[in-house]
Amino acid sequence: MPAPLQFHFDFISPYGYFASLRIEELAARHGREVDWRPMLLGVAVLKVMGLKPLLDTPLKGDYIRHDVRRYARRHGIALGRDLNAPIGNPLPAARAFCWVRRHHPALQAAVAHAIYHAFWAEGRDLSTPEAVASVALPPGLDAAALAEGAASEEAATLLRNAMGAATAAGVFGSPFLVIDGEPFWGVDRLPEAEEWLARGGW
Amino acid sequence: MPAPLQFHFDFISPYGYFASLRIEELAARHGREVDWRPMLLGVAVLKVMGLKPLLDTPLKGDYIRHDVRRYARRHGIALGRDLNAPIGNPLPAARAFCWVRRHHPALQAAVAHAIYHAFWAEGRDLSTPEAVASVALPPGLDAAALAEGAASEEAATLLRNAMGAATAAGVFGSPFLVIDGEPFWGVDRLPEAEEWLARGGW
Repeated sequence: MPAPLQFHFDFISPYGYFASLRIEELAARHGREVDWRPMLLGVAVLKVMGLKPLLDTPLKGDYIRHDVRRYARRHGIALGRDLNAPIGNPLPAARAFCWVRRHHPALQAAVAHAIYHAFWAEGRDLSTPEAVASVALPPGLDAAALAEGAASEEAATLLRNAMGAATAAGVFGSPFLVIDGEPFWGVDRLPEAEEWLARGGW
Repeated sequence: MPAPLQFHFDFISPYGYFASLRIEELAARHGREVDWRPMLLGVAVLKVMGLKPLLDTPLKGDYIRHDVRRYARRHGIALGRDLNAPIGNPLPAARAFCWVRRHHPALQAAVAHAIYHAFWAEGRDLSTPEAVASVALPPGLDAAALAEGAASEEAATLLRNAMGAATAAGVFGSPFLVIDGEPFWGVDRLPEAEEWLARGGW
């Protein structure tokens, strides 16, 4: 069995959301599974790279807003979120995911999709553990347990370690796909990543 | 006749080089011509957007170097340039191009290709008007006249105005393609741009 595809993502990233809707089918076409890896754009962009937030960058911010809407139209994705609305605190969702990944690994993909859908398709605020736990959870996951897990010191540590590992591996964006060590940044690189899988690299 | 595709590019941009090798065939497939528009990443990135140089950005710089080599291998493009070598002064090449665009418009595509090839395939330094004029010029273009043109106040003004117009139009990267007002940033967006042309947008 070849290694899973490392799919690094931040829930606040619209391109991460778009890629999350395609990554499992892409992986399955090549006999791979998906290893869901949460990361924090706020840390990567502001602290590690020393840049300003993407949407606050002159010209580029306007382009991104336009491009996100264009992608959504092209792929028939409903965006219930105002792209100018504050993102809110990204930590509860990422920590909740880390907790699920540790304690209910079989549910991690379903939870990633549920959180992404709530944030981007429904436009919900997910700034608290309780808000994250109120999304449409898969069977077998208790909302109260998830809220408690998301607020736990364990989840904070798991996320901190995940983010440290991602940075050490050179991950700086969302989505960021790593195939047997080969990095592909951005949803627009998924076709190239798939060609890499099909050809075994070049 | 539909409007030409505005192809904004900087000679120091490897992705601009890669796109320059594909843009005319892409345009021709849809009955379009290419309007070659020089821009300066140094101004757009550092002054307009307030970011640091791409290759000096932690993590992202390493990724870009890796990605540029990967793209070149995939497309069979020889890169004679060390990606860690100093870029040099980008103004003479951009000014030379502006001068050609004004005084020998029929030669602008040939000159763009010649400069790009000298810089990226041959790895030549193009930091002076004389160096730019020493590239393999198309018939009909005199090297001495080009060197003089590149050093002229007229060329400096043309480039300044071109850069001002590009910024006003929201252009911030290279390559940056504008199709009837619709912006596409990056060589990895050429397939999407082509789909836009084929479908007439969405």
